[in-house]
Amino acid sequence: MEIRQPYLMFLGDAPDQLAAKTAKGVAYWRPDACIGQLRLEGCKADLGLPDMSVEEAAEKGVKTLVIGVANRGGRIAPTWEQTMLKALDLGMDIASGLHKKVADIPSVREKAAKLGRSLFDVRHPTNDFELGTGAPRTGRRVLTVGTDCSVGKMFASLALEDELKKRGANADFRATGQTGIFIAGSGVSVDAVISDFISGAVEAIAPENDPNHWDLIEGQGSLFHASFAGVSMGLIHGAQADYLVMCHEPGRPHMRGLPHYGLPDIAEAIALNERCARLTNPRAKVVGIACNTSAMSESEAESTLAALAKEFGMPAVDPVRTGVASIVDAMLADAGETA
Amino acid sequence: MEIRQPYLMFLGDAPDQLAAKTAKGVAYWRPDACIGQLRLEGCKADLGLPDMSVEEAAEKGVKTLVIGVANRGGRIAPTWEQTMLKALDLGMDIASGLHKKVADIPSVREKAAKLGRSLFDVRHPTNDFELGTGAPRTGRRVLTVGTDCSVGKMFASLALEDELKKRGANADFRATGQTGIFIAGSGVSVDAVISDFISGAVEAIAPENDPNHWDLIEGQGSLFHASFAGVSMGLIHGAQADYLVMCHEPGRPHMRGLPHYGLPDIAEAIALNERCARLTNPRAKVVGIACNTSAMSESEAESTLAALAKEFGMPAVDPVRTGVASIVDAMLADAGETA
Repeated sequence: MEIRQPYLMFLGDAPDQLAAKTAKGVAYWRPDACIGQLRLEGCKADLGLPDMSVEEAAEKGVKTLVIGVANRGGRIAPTWEQTMLKALDLGMDIASGLHKKVADIPSVREKAAKLGRSLFDVRHPTNDFELGTGAPRTGRRVLTVGTDCSVGKMFASLALEDELKKRGANADFRATGQTGIFIAGSGVSVDAVISDFISGAVEAIAPENDPNHWDLIEGQGSLFHASFAGVSMGLIHGAQADYLVMCHEPGRPHMRGLPHYGLPDIAEAIALNERCARLTNPRAKVVGIACNTSAMSESEAESTLAALAKEFGMPAVDPVRTGVASIVDAMLADAGETA
Repeated sequence: MEIRQPYLMFLGDAPDQLAAKTAKGVAYWRPDACIGQLRLEGCKADLGLPDMSVEEAAEKGVKTLVIGVANRGGRIAPTWEQTMLKALDLGMDIASGLHKKVADIPSVREKAAKLGRSLFDVRHPTNDFELGTGAPRTGRRVLTVGTDCSVGKMFASLALEDELKKRGANADFRATGQTGIFIAGSGVSVDAVISDFISGAVEAIAPENDPNHWDLIEGQGSLFHASFAGVSMGLIHGAQADYLVMCHEPGRPHMRGLPHYGLPDIAEAIALNERCARLTNPRAKVVGIACNTSAMSESEAESTLAALAKEFGMPAVDPVRTGVASIVDAMLADAGETA
């Protein structure tokens, strides 16, 4: 699977910015790949990209229409369907993050088949994965883990990729969720994989590589989340990471979606993640903490990060406020590379 | 899902006993539910049940034809298909543990639909599960966990159910794999569930119950198995077990299917399983060790079990050789019930 860039970002009739958060993530991380946005009547989201029709996008060389928006009530409106059919006619593929597959819309499926276009329903993995083997493989791998879901694991992984590339390293972000897949153009929604194949799917997307190549693998969930820890566990084993980065949102009142569950403390989270990761990579260790301090003032954030760095003896950053340079320094130093 | 008993066990042309191990497990644990076996020409497996035709089975009141056998090369032979169609005609449902769904055979699907019969492809869960919530629920739950796959977790769970029932307790075996599902008549193949829903599926099959009701939940995989630990983790969280029973095969040279992975030691396995289980049930603890000592002499087995019991301060049994009474004693004592 390789989703061809550049993209036209379809926002449909998104009722607010939040409904378009997938599209927003793609536009933030791959601005050059996002040529424009297509908004239908009533759309309240805005990526700040040029508005354009499918025809204009085709003229500008767009290769894929990206449905990076939540649809209302799970139904795909006829206006959406017309846009997709026109995009196919004009030479585009379609990549969708909707729960309902676009490949299940008969008119879309038939036209795509007739014209030889690709339909990517990124929430619905179609690959047949092998079982994970845990066999050692070359290449360096970094996995973001977390005290909870939605604490910035994708963001941290992408920031690490950027920073490594800035320093001339050979690095690839490996996507495990829908937004990440649009950003990378490939990847697997691991939470949608049959559970026997979680670790195998991750082994497949972050395969053996050059000894000095870096894979930045997007983490999912948390070993401390009662709904999703199975996904996180399989991901940790499949990633076989040398370095883990612990992601955290200070001050969060409870685990996401589970009001009766408090957050683990960071020491506990580091210990269990290292413990589990060492099954498939005995050298695995947490080398940095990445916090989302967006709810804090500048001075609060600064003192929080300083306290964490002191307590755990490792860099503590906010990828947005401070960047991740100090974590990359620590990884490179440990790996014996100069920056 | 409720598979109606009694069963006619279909062995097809199984090339050896191993190909019929699912059927063998069902016949062992539910002899009264297995009225007979149906073997085609060339069948080398034998459950020791009366051989009978579909017609004879129908006369004897069989409700379900159970395909508890591996088929060669994944193809379903025309002779198998004929047997299934005849069974449907004579009023039976079909329950299959094949990788290929019987519901995907057009003639079988159409006849079942026409006659209102049920087709159970137990390796392919059809339910839409909710996400796990980890919310506390009443009732007592026991989960078998393991140092590895295929160390007797299903057997131990069924032996515990038997022993509890013998003592008058209200107890139910909860199946998480195909053989277990045929035995119980219901359950979910958790390794075939979409990974986001592992813990939710287990919450669904072992729901809230009377405070003194016992669920004996069949474990899968191992937290130490690089291929399957994600399944085991989600199962542990969903089970929310009060008591864990550690299953182990002494002397196994390496993790099943992974020659490069040694087995964890039992102390390590107890520590990590308790650690993870306590997320959703802070009282969770390992109360006994169940070993498969079939490769040992009587005296070897005896000294091995005695040494384990001494080392860990808990009952160590072989469910086949010694039964599981001492583990049930320990659970009842801890739960404050008299035997």
